[in-house]
Amino acid sequence: MGCRQSFRQCCDRPKNTNVRISLPAVCFVWQIVMIILFGIFIRYDQESDAHWAEYRKFQNISSDIENDFYFRYPSFQDVHVMIFVGFGFLMTFLKRYSFSAVGFNFLIAAFGLQWALLMQGWFQSLDPMDGKIKISMESLINADFCVASCLIAYGAVLGKLSPVQLMVMTLFGITLYAVDEFIILNLIHARDAGGSMVIHTFGAYYGLSISWMLYRPNLDQSKRLNGSVYHSDVFAMIGTLFLWMFWPSFNSAITDHGDGQHRAAINTYLALASTVLTTVAISSLSQKTGKLDMVHIQNSTLAGGVAVGTAAEFMLMPYGSLIIGFCCGIISTLGYIYITPFMEKYLKIQDTCGIHNLHAMPGVIGGIVGAVTAAAASEGVYGKAGLINTFDFTGKWKDMVPSRQGGHQAAGLCIALCFGVGGGIIVGWCLSLGCILRMPIWGDAPDDNCFDDELYWELPEDEESIPPILEDNNHMRNRDVTESHFSMEQSQN
Amino acid sequence: MGCRQSFRQCCDRPKNTNVRISLPAVCFVWQIVMIILFGIFIRYDQESDAHWAEYRKFQNISSDIENDFYFRYPSFQDVHVMIFVGFGFLMTFLKRYSFSAVGFNFLIAAFGLQWALLMQGWFQSLDPMDGKIKISMESLINADFCVASCLIAYGAVLGKLSPVQLMVMTLFGITLYAVDEFIILNLIHARDAGGSMVIHTFGAYYGLSISWMLYRPNLDQSKRLNGSVYHSDVFAMIGTLFLWMFWPSFNSAITDHGDGQHRAAINTYLALASTVLTTVAISSLSQKTGKLDMVHIQNSTLAGGVAVGTAAEFMLMPYGSLIIGFCCGIISTLGYIYITPFMEKYLKIQDTCGIHNLHAMPGVIGGIVGAVTAAAASEGVYGKAGLINTFDFTGKWKDMVPSRQGGHQAAGLCIALCFGVGGGIIVGWCLSLGCILRMPIWGDAPDDNCFDDELYWELPEDEESIPPILEDNNHMRNRDVTESHFSMEQSQN
Amino acid sequence: MGCRQSFRQCCDRPKNTNVRISLPAVCFVWQIVMIILFGIFIRYDQESDAHWAEYRKFQNISSDIENDFYFRYPSFQDVHVMIFVGFGFLMTFLKRYSFSAVGFNFLIAAFGLQWALLMQGWFQSLDPMDGKIKISMESLINADFCVASCLIAYGAVLGKLSPVQLMVMTLFGITLYAVDEFIILNLIHARDAGGSMVIHTFGAYYGLSISWMLYRPNLDQSKRLNGSVYHSDVFAMIGTLFLWMFWPSFNSAITDHGDGQHRAAINTYLALASTVLTTVAISSLSQKTGKLDMVHIQNSTLAGGVAVGTAAEFMLMPYGSLIIGFCCGIISTLGYIYITPFMEKYLKIQDTCGIHNLHAMPGVIGGIVGAVTAAAASEGVYGKAGLINTFDFTGKWKDMVPSRQGGHQAAGLCIALCFGVGGGIIVGWCLSLGCILRMPIWGDAPDDNCFDDELYWELPEDEESIPPILEDNNHMRNRDVTESHFSMEQSQN
Repeated sequence: MGCRQSFRQCCDRPKNTNVRISLPAVCFVWQIVMIILFGIFIRYDQESDAHWAEYRKFQNISSDIENDFYFRYPSFQDVHVMIFVGFGFLMTFLKRYSFSAVGFNFLIAAFGLQWALLMQGWFQSLDPMDGKIKISMESLINADFCVASCLIAYGAVLGKLSPVQLMVMTLFGITLYAVDEFIILNLIHARDAGGSMVIHTFGAYYGLSISWMLYRPNLDQSKRLNGSVYHSDVFAMIGTLFLWMFWPSFNSAITDHGDGQHRAAINTYLALASTVLTTVAISSLSQKTGKLDMVHIQNSTLAGGVAVGTAAEFMLMPYGSLIIGFCCGIISTLGYIYITPFMEKYLKIQDTCGIHNLHAMPGVIGGIVGAVTAAAASEGVYGKAGLINTFDFTGKWKDMVPSRQGGHQAAGLCIALCFGVGGGIIVGWCLSLGCILRMPIWGDAPDDNCFDDELYWELPEDEESIPPILEDNNHMRNRDVTESHFSMEQSQN
Repeated sequence: MGCRQSFRQCCDRPKNTNVRISLPAVCFVWQIVMIILFGIFIRYDQESDAHWAEYRKFQNISSDIENDFYFRYPSFQDVHVMIFVGFGFLMTFLKRYSFSAVGFNFLIAAFGLQWALLMQGWFQSLDPMDGKIKISMESLINADFCVASCLIAYGAVLGKLSPVQLMVMTLFGITLYAVDEFIILNLIHARDAGGSMVIHTFGAYYGLSISWMLYRPNLDQSKRLNGSVYHSDVFAMIGTLFLWMFWPSFNSAITDHGDGQHRAAINTYLALASTVLTTVAISSLSQKTGKLDMVHIQNSTLAGGVAVGTAAEFMLMPYGSLIIGFCCGIISTLGYIYITPFMEKYLKIQDTCGIHNLHAMPGVIGGIVGAVTAAAASEGVYGKAGLINTFDFTGKWKDMVPSRQGGHQAAGLCIALCFGVGGGIIVGWCLSLGCILRMPIWGDAPDDNCFDDELYWELPEDEESIPPILEDNNHMRNRDVTESHFSMEQSQN
Repeated sequence: MGCRQSFRQCCDRPKNTNVRISLPAVCFVWQIVMIILFGIFIRYDQESDAHWAEYRKFQNISSDIENDFYFRYPSFQDVHVMIFVGFGFLMTFLKRYSFSAVGFNFLIAAFGLQWALLMQGWFQSLDPMDGKIKISMESLINADFCVASCLIAYGAVLGKLSPVQLMVMTLFGITLYAVDEFIILNLIHARDAGGSMVIHTFGAYYGLSISWMLYRPNLDQSKRLNGSVYHSDVFAMIGTLFLWMFWPSFNSAITDHGDGQHRAAINTYLALASTVLTTVAISSLSQKTGKLDMVHIQNSTLAGGVAVGTAAEFMLMPYGSLIIGFCCGIISTLGYIYITPFMEKYLKIQDTCGIHNLHAMPGVIGGIVGAVTAAAASEGVYGKAGLINTFDFTGKWKDMVPSRQGGHQAAGLCIALCFGVGGGIIVGWCLSLGCILRMPIWGDAPDDNCFDDELYWELPEDEESIPPILEDNNHMRNRDVTESHFSMEQSQN
């Protein structure tokens, strides 16, 4: 960890945040590579190919409505909203980092989803006949899921990395995710409908480890910018609500047709409702005056959706979902109050958005709940066919039993944790090495100017200079005020 | 009404707005009660249970796509957005009450929907075989509908009640709604697809009656906060538009599969379009200079969706929908101009959001339109099967005729009105009693500090204190300003 | 073009922006005409009529789920969001024109969609049996599409026209669109799923021509208002993201059931992802310091969706979509940097939102891509049935071949261009004539007060006057400030 030491020292030096060469270069090179690889590997699958009409006749499918598009598309659009508006706006809470929050979220999501289609395709849907990846609506949903893990990681380093670093982080994040997912879902056959393990646990520990490697001891020099203003908190509520409302779609997007999707949506809906109440309760309790803290409402209310992810399609029972939400609201809010400051002070992990409370802990809980409920599954509750459908006890897994499935679930959780922590440390080390070697392409922010859009965005003149309108209204009356205002403006320009 | 007199006096006393004990207590107790009751009563129905595969085979259902999930889920998600983003952001128009508008809306909706699932379940879908309530997507939509009525009521008392009072109001509101709905839809067999009567009329009069009971004669002491600023009005437009756009889903969410949902969506779409034009016309006419008033655009443009609710699935004909929208835009906007001030001055009803104009009057119109169009229905227009499907003339109602159905619709409207006014007066009385008895748990706002987030939220430092950024840019120039700023900050911390 | 000269002179005179008579008159007259025409012409089609139950039995349709409602409704709602929130918020970027951006967008969309239902109905779905137009979900989507072209045109003249002028512009725009669409889609049988030609090319050139006719040489007198502030840019990102996310629904909303919708959504998703990367690259390259420009991120990231519109349902192949997005991101961003200033300076076209870069150029590219890919279509790639389905080679077009189809596509593009430019010049001439004749009903803005909500909206008191809250916090300290503040307020009231 000598590296971490060197990194801290190098952060004190003056920084070059100009990304004029590196950012366009990365974007162009990457996009051209994508076009070439897509050209070689990616084709439509039979449900999105123009041969569908023939395929349909051949398979004796009675109606176009049985095209998987109609099972998945509404959920896909909801997930898409969560990725771009949900995650994007959730991070706009900082007073002067809203452009970067929404804009870089947009950039790395658009960047990541193309790579995700390839990586996931190679691992999971390569057609052995022609060596092509066949994509459909389900592939797009999976790509969005994959991107979600990197956006979660972005939450930990929000305000501290340059767009170039974020793209490197995303590139490796997606790669690790695809391997991780392949091992968990395919090799050891764990179930993870809403991705408590694969998406949230992996993504959160990946981000936290990177943040740990890139610890900035002097970050409090940017303290003035590390907070919200009134309207930025309202913007963040847009993100919160779209995540909250569409989480049932997230957890049910790729579950089994029919009862699987139906049940996953109901479970998620209930878990989230329950979380809201305990979050409010703990938030109010934590303040001497009983006032609520917007940070908790924006984040902890979502913890139930994370935790119910793995088990969303299981027969959790409605009260089971409520209990999960109940616990997660409490744990997540307490996390914001006690664990985040502790981690920053003692573990040297700076977690801007508190993803440890929103994704890491609830993700682990979700994995455990999944393991327990899978182990406890019985033919009495699920029915014979239901058990096979829900846990996919088919093909080479047709002799699997619930109790062993529980063990596999637990193993999946451990793998997600290892990939997150291990991958994050390696990638974080690479990123910090770039800084130590003074690689000018990195363009990361100096300690005293983190959380500032000014570094990477052309900002509009400040709101302070709107008054010319005021002037219009009260021509004569407050001429003095206006004059002095203009003179200020002149001196500013 | 001696109670109201005493209440007014007690509002003058200094208030304790600390809800640190009462709010967490209510949340925890309530959530635990919910978990217990859900454990006893609530189970998945056959379409969301893992036994679906067997049920499907048994019922000879040809494909998973016929699971009710695929008929309802897109509409459900739209309704969900209306409840949380629509209602929530519509109320953010106040300059310093946006946190409470969105946040308490979130809290009482999450709180209410659990109780709604139970109450509606007991009344309408208790399985006589095993005494359990079986829930499905349709139950979730109905729970959201039920919650909508309480959020409407919240509009009337916005800024004047504490979160604890709001939760009490919601608890009783949901209970009354469930009884009211059972009587109207089941006992007297009125049709009310979009809830003009059940949701809007009931909810609005419930809220108005509570506001009447809690009349604050000195509310103008908070006048400085009872208005909007530029950006808060833009935030409110987010709410308006999401309500407006998704209203066709609201009115069609639980109508008959097939043509019923199709027709309800078309009718609502047209009624809303028409409302926009007359709202703009009246708003412009009402000002000497012809300028538009944002309050009207934010609210009255939605009146057509309310009024077309009951009759949305009937054969209203496209021009019929336009006529309804035409009238409601006029009436609702005139309501904001003349009736709201009148109500406040003479009837002593303070209606913060003007729900009388947006929900109460259009809701009553909707009920009347429903009664008239039901009475006028004929086999010529609907077809024999269409008439039976649309009005559900089956089972014990198979001898019903349209003219009598019209009478039942009118009776339904009266019942909704009575429940709203009566229930509101009783609940308002309870709430005011709490104040009179100086129950410290209430925590409601004093007259001179209503419409203020400060009471219940930890607020970020004001935007005024962003300048440290400016400082960055103009280091030397305005050092004096900055220094004085920092000294202010220090004294604040 | 003597007209343009006179128009420029008349802009210097003092203007009357009072629309108190003209705006309500237009709204009322128009809405009443609509009600009458809807009464005469518009009825439900068989899938939304109550006779559906009988029709279904007659046509031997196995389930309600095959009602077209379930194929189209989720896409319809997404398109609806794009029209009202997407276009509306995209234009809120101006510091003091957000009310007008969202509000007038709302007004002209609600106004236009009714007229679109009639115009498109007369041209395309008049039932020869009874002379009625039969509407369904597909009609509503088409009406929304039609309105989109006028909202694009609004982007060019944003801030410079009064609501009355906008409504006139919309009225003629919709009319021209319907004729244009009929010729392109029906007479010459071009395919245009996402409307690259019909919607974007037409709409953009229509708006640009109007803006050219209404050139204001002294517009820089309003320069102080022609820019953004920090929060208005964040609001605009709401518009951008909802357009970006739901564009797959836009391009797939009215394509063929099954693989057509599936493929269109995939192609659009990929094209848009690719656009984001090249937009960021060019935006960063264009600035000396490598900083990103919010204008590019807000607009150019959408260009790929426009350009993939026509060919979205063709077998573009995933890499083909990426290539289109790649090129459009570059071209559109370069357009903002070089072409918009050029057009304003030399061609005298003032394009407030830069629709030339977002809609016009990508629209033309989309038309060309459509022509080329149609001409290159082969039975090998599409399959026999696929080719017929995709290009609708049925009925009187059953002998059509792909190479000729390519020619028809190219002809369609030319027609869209001619209609846009020609129609825009005529309508622009009418609008400028109104100004020259000093028609008091026009109410357009003077050159020194464009981009100002003040003209048409009752604005709330400025944010500057929030401080009474501050006062609460710092009672004693800054009493002087507060006192002076109150005295200001008094003098204002």
